[in-house]
Amino acid sequence: MSTQTGCTFADVVAARRNVLKYLSRTPLHSYGDLNELLGASVFIKHENHHAVGAFKVRGGVNLAADLIAKGKRAPLYTASTGNHGQSIAFAGKVTGLPVRVALPKGANPAKAAAIGHLGAELIYHGTDFDEAREWIRGEAEKDGAHFIGPTEPLLIAGVGTYTMEIMEELPDVEVIIVPVGAGSGASSAALVAKSIKPGVRVIAVQAEKAPAIHNSWRAGEPVAAEMKTAADGLATRVAFENTLNMLLDKRTGIDDFLLVSDEAMETAVRLYLEHARTHAELAGGAPLAAALQIKSELAGKTVALALSGGNLAMDALCRLLADRG
Amino acid sequence: MSTQTGCTFADVVAARRNVLKYLSRTPLHSYGDLNELLGASVFIKHENHHAVGAFKVRGGVNLAADLIAKGKRAPLYTASTGNHGQSIAFAGKVTGLPVRVALPKGANPAKAAAIGHLGAELIYHGTDFDEAREWIRGEAEKDGAHFIGPTEPLLIAGVGTYTMEIMEELPDVEVIIVPVGAGSGASSAALVAKSIKPGVRVIAVQAEKAPAIHNSWRAGEPVAAEMKTAADGLATRVAFENTLNMLLDKRTGIDDFLLVSDEAMETAVRLYLEHARTHAELAGGAPLAAALQIKSELAGKTVALALSGGNLAMDALCRLLADRG
Repeated sequence: MSTQTGCTFADVVAARRNVLKYLSRTPLHSYGDLNELLGASVFIKHENHHAVGAFKVRGGVNLAADLIAKGKRAPLYTASTGNHGQSIAFAGKVTGLPVRVALPKGANPAKAAAIGHLGAELIYHGTDFDEAREWIRGEAEKDGAHFIGPTEPLLIAGVGTYTMEIMEELPDVEVIIVPVGAGSGASSAALVAKSIKPGVRVIAVQAEKAPAIHNSWRAGEPVAAEMKTAADGLATRVAFENTLNMLLDKRTGIDDFLLVSDEAMETAVRLYLEHARTHAELAGGAPLAAALQIKSELAGKTVALALSGGNLAMDALCRLLADRG
Repeated sequence: MSTQTGCTFADVVAARRNVLKYLSRTPLHSYGDLNELLGASVFIKHENHHAVGAFKVRGGVNLAADLIAKGKRAPLYTASTGNHGQSIAFAGKVTGLPVRVALPKGANPAKAAAIGHLGAELIYHGTDFDEAREWIRGEAEKDGAHFIGPTEPLLIAGVGTYTMEIMEELPDVEVIIVPVGAGSGASSAALVAKSIKPGVRVIAVQAEKAPAIHNSWRAGEPVAAEMKTAADGLATRVAFENTLNMLLDKRTGIDDFLLVSDEAMETAVRLYLEHARTHAELAGGAPLAAALQIKSELAGKTVALALSGGNLAMDALCRLLADRG
């Protein structure tokens, strides 16, 4: 994985055609209450409106379509019960490539079912995701399948298309705030925004309780950190070299990196429900939480927030609303 | 109002350009859990994804754009705190026409604020909506403004565009289920679906506790009925002549009309949250509630459900999740 490169702006532009072939553009909406709350012109990029509920599907679709265009109709193998797994399963379904997803024994049955519904074959192996991943990587090699890690260049290029859509619809944008899981969304957001309009300020957000990439970015090199956040979309233990290098790039990297508490993300999820009637997962709420943290800095500005995903489990939603007190 | 006509299929086709100028297409998504639940291929038309959260905005935008195209840059006057009021306010905002909305004294402040945020002028007059409406209708005449009632032909034609999108994306559709408030959505859905593919079965849904249009459709003429549903999108006391006539049309009217309980709509809202992570208001849940009611009839079929709106208040959402048992 560490030998993988990032992607270029041209790769994102090229990903456009693949993404638009299989996915609708997502809306960029403004809500009066949120504008008032932040004292800014705030636009929400609704990546939670994809069928699988998260931005990552753009990457999966780009990768699958690229394989097909190159005549490599290889099966797709990966390991994940999260948005990554669903995205690859969806990409296989719409492009017709078979998908095999490895899960550790005891993986969350509801999440596994969501992947199974998309037609992917589920294989339980090992006791944790690292074991499942290494096993399926070996299987892919044996079977001539394509193994997909979390930060493949084609995935990064695919997810970069949401920032292309923001720049087209909102040319006046001054600040873009994006969450960081493996870093594909944030690194491509900065790449795209800066390539189009160098003055746009791009701010990345991680959880206080899982600051590995934040700490790595500040240190200028990969450092590990604890990983205790409830925001599964942000639960990263180590930085990935290729996306970290993109985030660090002097010309097309991010401008700042903030940390938010789990409580601040929960508040953001509630604000989205109340004022935009939309469903965010904790990671999806992180940019709004960060915007509230730097409210005075954003005053009067035109700001885009990536609502990266909406896959919040029903139990978590109920708990969060019960705590609203 | 009773002298107004309905609209034609050509009117809907013509509305297309106006609607696409100001609004994104909404997605038509399929969710594995809902397919399994219904034993059918179910596609959800996400009209809750509009910025104002409901399908009606298509009508408002069509009407405003049509006035502008005809050189009649008249202010828009209406009365409503619901989706209709927000839609007209949004249409005025994007087209640059001033909007004045009359509300009775004591109207829900949160709903009024949502309309105010869209730049409309709010005027409180009278003690109920009938009074507010008649007053603003008189004001419109005095001021040379355009008064907008709930079933203007241009509104019906505008909302018909969502069914055009369904027919384009899902040519194999066999059944379409739509909720009925004033009837613009259901009458135009049947008109569009039947004009394109006469064999499509179009089923309308109202609340058991507000069956005026259902009863009128069965009687073949307008009859009043009690109005006690909590689903404000379906809270109609009397049928509107023009949309009722469209629903009754032998060739392009609806095939059947079902009634659902408020409890069944609440269950549908919960199912949407749980299985599609999406926010429905009670009226928006009505087609899913109806589909569950006629599950055996839909088995194996390709079915589109209009998720007409997502403007469920936070308190209602909390109550509904607390009742989940």
